[in-house]
Amino acid sequence: MKLYITLYSPYARMARIMLAEKGLESATETIIARTREIGSPYYKINPSGRVPYLVRDDGVGMEDSQLICSYLDHCKGSPKFMIPQGNAGWELWRLEALGRTMVEGASVWIRELLRREEERSPTIIDHEQRRLQRLADTWEEEIDNPLMHGQINMVQITLACALQLEIWNPEFEWRKGHPLLVEWLNTISDRSSLSTTEPPGPLSK
Amino acid sequence: MKLYITLYSPYARMARIMLAEKGLESATETIIARTREIGSPYYKINPSGRVPYLVRDDGVGMEDSQLICSYLDHCKGSPKFMIPQGNAGWELWRLEALGRTMVEGASVWIRELLRREEERSPTIIDHEQRRLQRLADTWEEEIDNPLMHGQINMVQITLACALQLEIWNPEFEWRKGHPLLVEWLNTISDRSSLSTTEPPGPLSK
Repeated sequence: MKLYITLYSPYARMARIMLAEKGLESATETIIARTREIGSPYYKINPSGRVPYLVRDDGVGMEDSQLICSYLDHCKGSPKFMIPQGNAGWELWRLEALGRTMVEGASVWIRELLRREEERSPTIIDHEQRRLQRLADTWEEEIDNPLMHGQINMVQITLACALQLEIWNPEFEWRKGHPLLVEWLNTISDRSSLSTTEPPGPLSK
Repeated sequence: MKLYITLYSPYARMARIMLAEKGLESATETIIARTREIGSPYYKINPSGRVPYLVRDDGVGMEDSQLICSYLDHCKGSPKFMIPQGNAGWELWRLEALGRTMVEGASVWIRELLRREEERSPTIIDHEQRRLQRLADTWEEEIDNPLMHGQINMVQITLACALQLEIWNPEFEWRKGHPLLVEWLNTISDRSSLSTTEPPGPLSK
C-alpha cells in the first residue's frame, strides 16, 4: 500500500498513528505529497489534493482519515478500533466527533496563520480561539469518561492529535485552567505511535 | 429531539434530508442556530458552535453530520443507510469520502466569499476552483457506479448537497463538460427530501 501524507496534517497523522498501532509500517510506503501547488503531480494520484490518501494493494485510492484508519485496522490481525454497535458505539462516536471538531478548529487557525499577513482575518482567528477555549473547557469535563482511559481508541488518538497542534501553533494555549487535560496528555503522549509522529516544531509564518 | 441547523450549511442539510427520509420531522424540533457571533447563546448548547447538532431525547448532544445521520437512521424503523460490512462497505465509504471532499472544497470557497473583500485570498479561491474542477472530472467517471443509482444512500445525498452548492455560489460552475453528472442531478433533485431542503438562493457577499 502507499500512504500519502504531509508532515503537518493532523489528519494524515491519525493514519500514520494507525500504521504504527497495527504494525503496518513495513507493508506501506509512506510518501510526502506536494499539496497546494498548482499543477502538482499529486493531483493525478488524488484529484482532491488532500491528505491522507491511501492507495490500496488493488490500486484503488481512498481519502478521509476515518475511512483510512478503519481500513488499516482491518488489514492485519483482528480489528481493534471498530465502533461497537449500540449505546457504547454512539458514545464513542460522539466523543470522536468532539475531538475532531477541535482538530478542525485548530487547523482553520493554522491555515489562517499560513496566509499572507494582509489576507489574514483577525475576526476568524478570534473566532477559532474562542471556539477552542470552549472546547478545552468541555473536554476538561469529559476527560474522566472511561473511554478516554484504558485501551487505545480513535477518540484518544483524535484528541491527542488536536491538543498537540500546540506544537505547530504555540499560541494555541489550551493548558491553563485545564489540569486534567494536561495530565491526560502527559500520560498518553509517551506512547510510541504518538511520540514518533509528533509535529517537529512551530510552523514558520 | 432538537436539531440545530443553519439554512446555508450543506452538512446541516444532510441531517435535514435524513429527517425527511426517515419521517422524523414531527418528532424533531428544528432550530436555526446563531453561529459565528461572539457570545451567542448557542455556544451554551454546543460549545463548538458548529451545525448540525442533535440534542437527543435523553439530553445528550452530538455533532458531526455522519454521526447524526446514522443516529437518526436508527431512531425509527429499521436502519436503511448503514455502511455494510466487507467490500461493498469500503466502496460505499470511499465514494462518500469523495463526495464529502467536494462539499468541503465548495464550502471553503463560500466561506472565502463571505469574508471582507480585503481579507479574501485569490490564491485560495483559485486553489478551490481547480480542486472542484478535478473532482467534477472524477465524478463524471464514477457516476456510472451502481451505488449512485437505485436505492438512496449517503453517497447520493452527499454528492447532491455538494453539486447544489452552485445555488449558493453561482461561480461554482461544474456543469460544463460533465453531462453525466448533470443528468444524474436532474434525476435525483426532484426527490422530496432534496427539493424541500434546497438552498434558497445565492449568498449575498
